[in-house]
Amino acid sequence: MASSPTPLASLTNRQVRLAARPVGLPTRADWNFTTEPVAEPEAGGIVVKTLALSLDPAMRGWMNEGKSYIAPVEIGAVMRAGGIGVVMASKAPAFAVGDLVSAGLGVQQYCSIPAAELKRSGVFRIDTRLGTPEQWLNVLGMPGMTGYFGLMDVGQPQPGETVVVSGAAGAVGQTVGQLAKIKGCRVVGIAGGAAKCAWVVKELGFDACIDYKAGNVRDELKAACPKGVDVYFDNVGGEILDTVLGRLARKARIVICGAISQYNNTTPVQGPKNYLSLLVNRARMEGIVVFDYTDRFPRAVAEMAGYLKDGRMKSKEDVVEGLDTFPETLLKLFNGENFGKLVLRVASA
Amino acid sequence: MASSPTPLASLTNRQVRLAARPVGLPTRADWNFTTEPVAEPEAGGIVVKTLALSLDPAMRGWMNEGKSYIAPVEIGAVMRAGGIGVVMASKAPAFAVGDLVSAGLGVQQYCSIPAAELKRSGVFRIDTRLGTPEQWLNVLGMPGMTGYFGLMDVGQPQPGETVVVSGAAGAVGQTVGQLAKIKGCRVVGIAGGAAKCAWVVKELGFDACIDYKAGNVRDELKAACPKGVDVYFDNVGGEILDTVLGRLARKARIVICGAISQYNNTTPVQGPKNYLSLLVNRARMEGIVVFDYTDRFPRAVAEMAGYLKDGRMKSKEDVVEGLDTFPETLLKLFNGENFGKLVLRVASA
Repeated sequence: MASSPTPLASLTNRQVRLAARPVGLPTRADWNFTTEPVAEPEAGGIVVKTLALSLDPAMRGWMNEGKSYIAPVEIGAVMRAGGIGVVMASKAPAFAVGDLVSAGLGVQQYCSIPAAELKRSGVFRIDTRLGTPEQWLNVLGMPGMTGYFGLMDVGQPQPGETVVVSGAAGAVGQTVGQLAKIKGCRVVGIAGGAAKCAWVVKELGFDACIDYKAGNVRDELKAACPKGVDVYFDNVGGEILDTVLGRLARKARIVICGAISQYNNTTPVQGPKNYLSLLVNRARMEGIVVFDYTDRFPRAVAEMAGYLKDGRMKSKEDVVEGLDTFPETLLKLFNGENFGKLVLRVASA
Repeated sequence: MASSPTPLASLTNRQVRLAARPVGLPTRADWNFTTEPVAEPEAGGIVVKTLALSLDPAMRGWMNEGKSYIAPVEIGAVMRAGGIGVVMASKAPAFAVGDLVSAGLGVQQYCSIPAAELKRSGVFRIDTRLGTPEQWLNVLGMPGMTGYFGLMDVGQPQPGETVVVSGAAGAVGQTVGQLAKIKGCRVVGIAGGAAKCAWVVKELGFDACIDYKAGNVRDELKAACPKGVDVYFDNVGGEILDTVLGRLARKARIVICGAISQYNNTTPVQGPKNYLSLLVNRARMEGIVVFDYTDRFPRAVAEMAGYLKDGRMKSKEDVVEGLDTFPETLLKLFNGENFGKLVLRVASA
């Protein structure tokens, strides 16, 4: 069980640490690259070699000071990130060298996970029969679970209803839209650029997709949702949220998952000036944080893996190579350059 | 049954009609005063003499063009208003001369209600054993029902939770706060001026009331709600909504009932820039329209009348005399001059 065939002492761990709290878009000056030796695992702990990291819009929020649903990353700390890695050394009975695990690895090459953290549900072995490591960061991972529980528990879509999702080509958006189709809804995406929109419709099977960069979201939304919007899954906030508020159906549900358009603001967040549409339409707007649903991940993962297997769910990742590209790769999320779930590949198994 | 002892032909009906769509606060120029003869009721209809009218913030919205939860008042039409009146003539078997009724009478001295409208639940005899005509416009009427269903169905307060209500001395606010106390909650009001705040605490039994005109709502809210806000019943919108969003407890519910601070804007509505607190706190914000609950009014009225009778619920009305004062009296709502539910007394029985 507890074994350590690799001489860890011969390895160094390259790390990306938060150097400063960014103002607006993070720049390279907001990061420090450091190296330190790789130590043997603590009693009951493991050492994991990072293979791939999940880069997500929420990371921008973790870089800010102040109370949120999770503590901010401290200045000088390794940047928080979820990822897939391989166990290099184990003093934990439940993990063997060679196991592939999903965990909060941080933006670094190696992560030492102490015994206490292993007991939380955030560290678990992945089953590659259900999906590839990249899929375990996408539809089977946090973004997929966010989409699953946000849509099913908060959005509560009924067959025949119209579901709109922004960030439709992103990690959460692709899950939400495909799942809503599987559940019998009419699905309209909103994404940036003709290529993403075409992919969302042709490959993922959405009924329509609106290119917000092309212009008239309001008119296109009206045309695509003649009966109004029953569920809006919002990943972007800002003007698009206001536009969708203007098209709500009676008793609509808005799932507030994120607001990527606002994360790099140096001015206050743009509040939805059409929020009184909630009153007129007896609608509701509700937030979702995926960590509340960890107990139910296994069943949801099994369901999603079934859809992957039978071809009803597709999973697209945008994989960028190399830990050192992290500062620039992260920015792809905020200028909309990523096409599919953004993954940083750090090493091969 | 059907009888008409008063010579209606001898009466004239003074009316207040919408002359123009106001920009900002309505002025006298936005109204036309007209008179017309009082006709006999149509077959199956009744003629009602207006005794008292309910003046409500929502009336401002009805004066605007455009889709809402109810059609706008047309230019040239008698201004819409709910009220209490006495039946002067009846060709309807269910109503006798002398009956006191609650109905959409409009801002006029006499209202002819056709048979079709009588069948809707919006016209009903009031039982003065349960409450005075003024109380039937207040806690037993639309504002009371709005508060009742908004709090109970949308807010869903649990004993021990903290409920905050803005416009606390107004018609809806006084109902919400007292009902939340009865249901075992800690109740904090927000109102304008020391006199209203003192009344809300001393007479209505709220645990605290914050004078938003006195200054620091944020700090006072923090002091009054040490465990955060579980239910916020919002009648005002604007800065106060944003401030309360900043103090939400986990899984909080915000009831969007109105936004009086925004109704006379000549600029776009101020959206809640702290709306991402819904995400952080897994909270929801939901609209209420009282007309959805008419089927359940009788039971709610009976419950509220019981509280009036046993002294646990008080009902304060601000009664202004005279149809001709309507244009100025309405403005009391928007400059916060009304103290209690604003009622326009048009005639005595």
